[in-house]
Amino acid sequence: MKQKLTKLSELGEFKLIDELTKDFKIKNKSTIKGVGDDAAIIDSSDKETVITTDLLVEGIHFDLTYSSLKYIGYKAVVVNLSDIYAMNAVPKQITVSFALSNKFSYEALSEIYKGIHNACEAYGVDLIGGDSSSSKLGFFISVTAIGEVEKGKAVYRNTAQETDLICVSGDLGAAYMGLQLLEREKSIFAKTPEIQPDFRGNEYIIQRQLRPEARKDIIELLADKNITPTSMIDISDGLSSEILHICKKSKKGCEIYEDKLPIDKQTIEMSHELGIEPTISAMNGGEDYELLFTIPLSDYEKIKKYPQVSVIGHITKHENQIDLISENGVKVPITAQGWNAIK
Amino acid sequence: MKQKLTKLSELGEFKLIDELTKDFKIKNKSTIKGVGDDAAIIDSSDKETVITTDLLVEGIHFDLTYSSLKYIGYKAVVVNLSDIYAMNAVPKQITVSFALSNKFSYEALSEIYKGIHNACEAYGVDLIGGDSSSSKLGFFISVTAIGEVEKGKAVYRNTAQETDLICVSGDLGAAYMGLQLLEREKSIFAKTPEIQPDFRGNEYIIQRQLRPEARKDIIELLADKNITPTSMIDISDGLSSEILHICKKSKKGCEIYEDKLPIDKQTIEMSHELGIEPTISAMNGGEDYELLFTIPLSDYEKIKKYPQVSVIGHITKHENQIDLISENGVKVPITAQGWNAIK
Repeated sequence: MKQKLTKLSELGEFKLIDELTKDFKIKNKSTIKGVGDDAAIIDSSDKETVITTDLLVEGIHFDLTYSSLKYIGYKAVVVNLSDIYAMNAVPKQITVSFALSNKFSYEALSEIYKGIHNACEAYGVDLIGGDSSSSKLGFFISVTAIGEVEKGKAVYRNTAQETDLICVSGDLGAAYMGLQLLEREKSIFAKTPEIQPDFRGNEYIIQRQLRPEARKDIIELLADKNITPTSMIDISDGLSSEILHICKKSKKGCEIYEDKLPIDKQTIEMSHELGIEPTISAMNGGEDYELLFTIPLSDYEKIKKYPQVSVIGHITKHENQIDLISENGVKVPITAQGWNAIK
Repeated sequence: MKQKLTKLSELGEFKLIDELTKDFKIKNKSTIKGVGDDAAIIDSSDKETVITTDLLVEGIHFDLTYSSLKYIGYKAVVVNLSDIYAMNAVPKQITVSFALSNKFSYEALSEIYKGIHNACEAYGVDLIGGDSSSSKLGFFISVTAIGEVEKGKAVYRNTAQETDLICVSGDLGAAYMGLQLLEREKSIFAKTPEIQPDFRGNEYIIQRQLRPEARKDIIELLADKNITPTSMIDISDGLSSEILHICKKSKKGCEIYEDKLPIDKQTIEMSHELGIEPTISAMNGGEDYELLFTIPLSDYEKIKKYPQVSVIGHITKHENQIDLISENGVKVPITAQGWNAIK
């Protein structure tokens, strides 16, 4: 009898990882936190070491028809640093491995490394190793970032408390709208090459997609103002997906207010142009690399005057009540519509 | 004017990495050793953290027509642990990232994770994170290993001293002969599928290729006997390539004695069958994952009674004299014929 095989798409990435890693038991005392957060934590005497890794694949995470090689290198580093910041830690080192086909020249690869170098300079991290290989088709880049945090200061995603305020840095949905615009222009160009894409007026959303930044400044602001978030995660798969992680892991619910969602003007305009509700872009668009975190109510006075942070809701008691409160006051359950790399 | 582009194959992996990373300056005090050894070293108060990463690519590093998925998972971990041991460190954690096409089922991926799990159990390491993605073609697995070593006890490849003895663990060339045999049988099977491959009598070389081990036992033996190697590297690209690394980085020469090379009977027989000199298999065959290290002459008495270690030569003064002394006493300069993943 032939065994029925399970398609990977039936499981989804998080279920998949849960399933694959469920039999792995922690054996070393120095392993403080393993699989299941933005990054892992290793004990290092007076500090803790934070490790995370991300793989970027041509045709899945980036498209060489509209991204520059330098931006791809930059983004590959930044998405990892974002995970380190999301643990309230400071990134210090990275390793970079890549596989690429023969069609790439040294000059092309060198452009990628310029982007990696720019990111190392911008964030003060050291490139300390890596590996290289050929591939039969396509380009793969795998980055591991290592950071440090004072003992006991790492912030997890499973520690949100009832009544905590839910905060988000920057604005949401722009990277997703940038991607939609790039994809639209790519398909127009494929049909009618004489029409050159014109991105004037949409520079911000394009840049958010192609050359995102990690929120080093927010971690510094929180430290400076003596605010320790009760939980934190970075927004790589969309706000809906990330707030679900925080609530489910913390066994809490939440209310997010639609009218509090920070959305840039360009994101709103492009959403309208493409017939998408801006709220949908903000809730479900991935790759913002903003920080989503919770703080005690008592820290509200400290945070409220910083425009780079928006308070968008609060944590509630019941874990099955994870809701968006719409502008007209209707409660809508939040479901994961997040971007998913396993297609 | 069109710029002349450089093919990656013109550079070779080590030159490529040197070129790509030459402008990266170390910025963090905690970065003790960056690019350029088996692994990087990070300061962690009373210990040092050791980091290494390796990428395995379908069709380059493994072939699904003759390797089992479980072995691929096992090998992906082991090749990284080998780099950690080669720093005289103990591996503690790994992260695993993979990209794979839709043709893979969950059950297939699960087999790979069984292999990863087996390696974690065998070597006492914790899986602490990773990433997953789809790919358009082929399977990629990227593993990062993290280990620890007492402060100042890490062993580098650039610290061999004149008169030091050159030692190697286990035997050489078997993994390469295993690969040659597998490739031969694959091509026979492709032409005449009714002929099933028969590996009887060649189990050892096949296993060395498909399911290598890292030399945890050697690191434990050295610690137990209070021997600190003056330099060390693991043999992934072949003895020739690795001894060249040690000599060039240490600015020394060496003499390796052909008649001291440890070669298994199966390796010798298969070399003869395929018309290859067994010495060539031992010197240039990659993927042995044995440890190549140097010790002071004064430690000879301590090491000589252990059959798992062979003394194969000694370090000499002049860095341009890196020689193999053949069985009939002829000096042959050693050149890098090592296996190279950038083709």
